[in-house]
Amino acid sequence: VTLPITFLSDYGHDDEFAGVCRSVIAWLAPDARVVDISHGIPRQNVLRGSLMLQRSLPFAPPGVHLAVVDPGVGTRRRAVVIRTADEERLLVGPDNGLLMPAAERFGGPSAAFDIGRSQFALDGAGGTFDGRDLFAPVAAKLAAGADPAEAGEAFDASELRTLKLPMPSLEGEALRCQVLDIDGYGNAATNAIPEDLPGLSAGVMVQVTGAATVRLPYAIAFADVEPGLPLLFTDSSGALAFGVNQGSAVNRFQFRPGDEVLLRVL
Amino acid sequence: VTLPITFLSDYGHDDEFAGVCRSVIAWLAPDARVVDISHGIPRQNVLRGSLMLQRSLPFAPPGVHLAVVDPGVGTRRRAVVIRTADEERLLVGPDNGLLMPAAERFGGPSAAFDIGRSQFALDGAGGTFDGRDLFAPVAAKLAAGADPAEAGEAFDASELRTLKLPMPSLEGEALRCQVLDIDGYGNAATNAIPEDLPGLSAGVMVQVTGAATVRLPYAIAFADVEPGLPLLFTDSSGALAFGVNQGSAVNRFQFRPGDEVLLRVL
Amino acid sequence: VTLPITFLSDYGHDDEFAGVCRSVIAWLAPDARVVDISHGIPRQNVLRGSLMLQRSLPFAPPGVHLAVVDPGVGTRRRAVVIRTADEERLLVGPDNGLLMPAAERFGGPSAAFDIGRSQFALDGAGGTFDGRDLFAPVAAKLAAGADPAEAGEAFDASELRTLKLPMPSLEGEALRCQVLDIDGYGNAATNAIPEDLPGLSAGVMVQVTGAATVRLPYAIAFADVEPGLPLLFTDSSGALAFGVNQGSAVNRFQFRPGDEVLLRVL
Repeated sequence: VTLPITFLSDYGHDDEFAGVCRSVIAWLAPDARVVDISHGIPRQNVLRGSLMLQRSLPFAPPGVHLAVVDPGVGTRRRAVVIRTADEERLLVGPDNGLLMPAAERFGGPSAAFDIGRSQFALDGAGGTFDGRDLFAPVAAKLAAGADPAEAGEAFDASELRTLKLPMPSLEGEALRCQVLDIDGYGNAATNAIPEDLPGLSAGVMVQVTGAATVRLPYAIAFADVEPGLPLLFTDSSGALAFGVNQGSAVNRFQFRPGDEVLLRVL
Repeated sequence: VTLPITFLSDYGHDDEFAGVCRSVIAWLAPDARVVDISHGIPRQNVLRGSLMLQRSLPFAPPGVHLAVVDPGVGTRRRAVVIRTADEERLLVGPDNGLLMPAAERFGGPSAAFDIGRSQFALDGAGGTFDGRDLFAPVAAKLAAGADPAEAGEAFDASELRTLKLPMPSLEGEALRCQVLDIDGYGNAATNAIPEDLPGLSAGVMVQVTGAATVRLPYAIAFADVEPGLPLLFTDSSGALAFGVNQGSAVNRFQFRPGDEVLLRVL
Repeated sequence: VTLPITFLSDYGHDDEFAGVCRSVIAWLAPDARVVDISHGIPRQNVLRGSLMLQRSLPFAPPGVHLAVVDPGVGTRRRAVVIRTADEERLLVGPDNGLLMPAAERFGGPSAAFDIGRSQFALDGAGGTFDGRDLFAPVAAKLAAGADPAEAGEAFDASELRTLKLPMPSLEGEALRCQVLDIDGYGNAATNAIPEDLPGLSAGVMVQVTGAATVRLPYAIAFADVEPGLPLLFTDSSGALAFGVNQGSAVNRFQFRPGDEVLLRVL
């Protein structure tokens, strides 16, 4: 049985980088289905990549999950395969924290393999394009049935590097949280979930102070407010997010990833 | 037999939205081929999406045609499957007119199904990301062989919402028409076809007044005019369009979608 | 046996052009795997397209290789299938030099076929969208097993048009070369390889004069210089290139494709 491969990177859409990785996979695993998640991660932004991977994998079939956002390519950072405790998914990429939030969604790592000297790497690999030379061929071989232990050397999964994700915190009745991610519609997702904010329920007004200072309603759907008006809502990943019905919260409030805001139910 | 699925949206290329929908399909219909038409429709521009879908489907194999440009997500607008009279194609998306011009290319709707409460929707669907939670799973199940009547409840197809497409009109010998669509090469397509303009034949000069005021030849191929010169031509979808040989009509004439122009053969 | 098809074009990501070609292929060759290399070639830039194709194909499985960057569409330029001497790859596209650097990677053309009047072209083809009407259907039919001689008429491969690629040249100990290509990370690749520059070895300083005037080290990996510092390195395609560790050489030095630089080992 050939496993499906999901593929996420910061390679962008104008260069051939993602296409060359798909080519390598098509050669080594001609029957493996490749599902592109996105290649539009901001360049070398490991945090943004890890969040997107974490949000996406629960909707992807179990299989091989290739992810490359790798500012440390060419350094001594490990290249790894992680096997998850639940569903035995195989995550392939650099050991810079990119894969870990997604792995946590599936019970965390049950095993880790260092593939830096993998027998599956392409000959003549130069150390500047590990996506093509190392990660894609390993993903392809795993999809085609190879065991992770053939791809690299097992090591203690507790050595895997993790990202420090910013956590929301309560200050009395107010919640200090951070804008984590902004989508193409101009919605700004925070690192908080509805349960984090005391007193939150559909229809209450929320005071926002910080990067933006404003009062807006917490609503279930965009259409619960008039077109052009802002709202706080729970986005499709379960996070508290700022939006504007038929508009852009980012254009309106000039949010940027990393901005801190304080939320309080009025 | 598994049907192929075409997929068009305004999800853009930088977020994971289109990729997550592809993931859901890969999970529910592992054998279905997914053909991405485009995800670069201007955000929430139903008209532009409907035109692109209409132009594309005649070149796609009969099957399931998923399209999501959905400013009304979360409101009471219907979510639908439309079956076309010719070729029994299955169009899946919001009931906001997006699917109708394409359906007309195949004899119009022969049946319509409301999938708002589909058994195929993902559990826990939140109403902000129907592409992932509703449309993609329904498309996948249809591709895998489900009957539309299993996906939703039949209703009278005459209730389907339609778009008001602007129509060209004659004013004496002159044709009033509208710039509908602009492509990445800078060509500007109108809502008219060659038969609409009296006296048009290869080589005649045409007077354009309105958004741009200029005289240019009607030519069959770009190469019929010198590099850098403008022309009126019939584009690959059969529409009258403005172009510049090895250049951009949009840069030259500042056309925008919606601009009115009056054409007259000299 | 169905062959895989790689696909490269300048169609961009916002229009339906690439998607319609994929649709045609899905219809005519339902079992053919399509691997998108990139559709982000700068519009009508045959040279940039030819370089990307040449860099990519060695990593793609032998099969059909569709490439469309075609400023001469609608003129008398030939439309061709090229068979390569090594691996019998089939390259499909316009005869404007686009395919030739890639063909040279596989021993050059062993046969050429003029497909301008191919029986495989779609009916009613209008001469403005040969990707959809001619190249995609021919590629699909070849992938599904057709012989190139069925797709068109054989002609002398020596008549195939070639691109004049700029070549580096020595001026005493200095190497005059050209910036050929810039990627999305801001790396600037030249038309030279390390063997072209006398005295080059890891760690030496190189004097650059011309578009940028600067001294920088030749290093193996980005991490061999401090973050923010520039380097000369050998990129993943084997070319001498300018980079900045965790930064952009293009932003720093304002390189543009076509810029001449003189390199000298200090």
